[in-house]
Amino acid sequence: MSLSEFNIIKQYFSSISTKENSPNIHLGVGDDAAIVSTPENKKLVVCTDTLNEGIHFPLNTSAYDIAYKALAVNLSDLAAMGATPKWFALNLSMPGINEDWLTGFSTGLKQLAGEYQLDLIGGDTTRGPLSVSITLAGHIEGVTALMRSSAKVGDKVYLSGCTGEAAYGLACLSSAATINDSDKYFVSRLNQPTARVSLGLSLLGIANACIDISDGLVADIAHIAEASQCGIELDSNIIPLPAIADKEQARQHALSGGDDYELVFTVAPARQAALKQLISQTDLPITCIGEVVAAPGVLLLDNGRSVGLSRTGYEHFNNK
Amino acid sequence: MSLSEFNIIKQYFSSISTKENSPNIHLGVGDDAAIVSTPENKKLVVCTDTLNEGIHFPLNTSAYDIAYKALAVNLSDLAAMGATPKWFALNLSMPGINEDWLTGFSTGLKQLAGEYQLDLIGGDTTRGPLSVSITLAGHIEGVTALMRSSAKVGDKVYLSGCTGEAAYGLACLSSAATINDSDKYFVSRLNQPTARVSLGLSLLGIANACIDISDGLVADIAHIAEASQCGIELDSNIIPLPAIADKEQARQHALSGGDDYELVFTVAPARQAALKQLISQTDLPITCIGEVVAAPGVLLLDNGRSVGLSRTGYEHFNNK
Repeated sequence: MSLSEFNIIKQYFSSISTKENSPNIHLGVGDDAAIVSTPENKKLVVCTDTLNEGIHFPLNTSAYDIAYKALAVNLSDLAAMGATPKWFALNLSMPGINEDWLTGFSTGLKQLAGEYQLDLIGGDTTRGPLSVSITLAGHIEGVTALMRSSAKVGDKVYLSGCTGEAAYGLACLSSAATINDSDKYFVSRLNQPTARVSLGLSLLGIANACIDISDGLVADIAHIAEASQCGIELDSNIIPLPAIADKEQARQHALSGGDDYELVFTVAPARQAALKQLISQTDLPITCIGEVVAAPGVLLLDNGRSVGLSRTGYEHFNNK
Repeated sequence: MSLSEFNIIKQYFSSISTKENSPNIHLGVGDDAAIVSTPENKKLVVCTDTLNEGIHFPLNTSAYDIAYKALAVNLSDLAAMGATPKWFALNLSMPGINEDWLTGFSTGLKQLAGEYQLDLIGGDTTRGPLSVSITLAGHIEGVTALMRSSAKVGDKVYLSGCTGEAAYGLACLSSAATINDSDKYFVSRLNQPTARVSLGLSLLGIANACIDISDGLVADIAHIAEASQCGIELDSNIIPLPAIADKEQARQHALSGGDDYELVFTVAPARQAALKQLISQTDLPITCIGEVVAAPGVLLLDNGRSVGLSRTGYEHFNNK
């Protein structure tokens, strides 16, 4: 059975919509473009990310997981801004039509889109090497967004959850034909990352700067330091490690593994009480891992002494 | 020299912005997401298109042309809605870093973005088979957009310019090692299509339905007919043909060649005078090629008699 581009959109994607509940979506999938509006007191926050087969996900990743992750990594970008996700556009390139694959893909997309009541407003399905780009937009009030550039000297630096779990999951997939039960958690962290959307929203008015960890903890913290024209000192003894036997591997993954999509954020002394209250209300572990300082760069400290630190996280063009 | 993803964005793309002149762009390239706003009386019109190497452009297409075309095809979608283009996000996958290629690509992008004073608000540059996705947004007042679904029985059907020229350009590239001077025009129609943005804006209040011709004249007219639940009769003796020697080839290209990015639109009898005035004010040829009728489907007529017609335009998954 041959499906045209138009039928693919109609059959698999046109139902990913809560349009009836979305007064701001005036025209969705099906015309040359979609028409949306933003409430008067809101601004639109827009991000986009591409996942390519063999680069951003292993060759045998399920269609469900590819769709889930493609949307999750974009949700994570909006989480890091403190925005409420609203709608997205999908660019899907596939080598050919496999209806089982499309069913899995649309199911994964629908699952995560449903959790956040997102509307799929349009997109492009076409032939090519397997690649998914999603452009996601959300709302934010006024100009209160969390930015990379707003860290201040004296802020404490916090991390949600634990980094390095996705990198260990990838290592498991690379080294074993079958994944044992204890490692399945780590593979799920790689394939179905959890965007910290709720945390990002809660940090509005509490955090100064924020970023999501996509390229590696140290690399992304360096982005905050550079954008904020300051430095950051990390306490190597406090950084949470993945629960694996090899502690040196755990430490490497925690510092430079990518694909975790946790949030790193900085909080001024005056807002520590508000943060403490927030921490008491969430099940998500939030750890103080360092402090913002004046001297530029990122330092890793062990009992106050600087220890060796690779600042390099995952950069696509350095991993050729 | 190795360039990281961050430096690629900074060096080649961060300058494609008129942010200082754009009160609606609050945060551009460089954070987890961009922040924009839409003026109170406007709605946002959003489209997205992907171009993959070897599918949407031949392997030896210049970087300048790839960028130009990737933006032009999106501009054409907004033209077909009657929207004013404002900003875009870029997803660029490349096998590796070639600075000459990036220079050409950013020059092409900057050229066309500059013509429309567009802001590049963000994107993702990553490793993968060569692929460009652009998501373009524009503004429109109220709910006056041109849609596929608004054709009415009795409307006349109009075409801007001439279809089939891009398809002939592709045929020239496929059959000849060098392109002679007389064919260069057709190759330029393929590689640097002209989005009819100004025409689309002028058609607000005049046209009922509108679509841009990306998949082929008949195929895209069929989209209007289906969305509007009507039929369309085309006069085969009036449809403009590319100026090439082989008239049968010209006719085939005009009817089913893709990549032209002309506009087809329908106009009610009561708006013919307004259209006539518009035609008198533009250098772009606009031809009445048919009429909207009640019986569903698209018919091609030769002196009132139906002639054979392939309704199939360019569909990516039928061209494997």
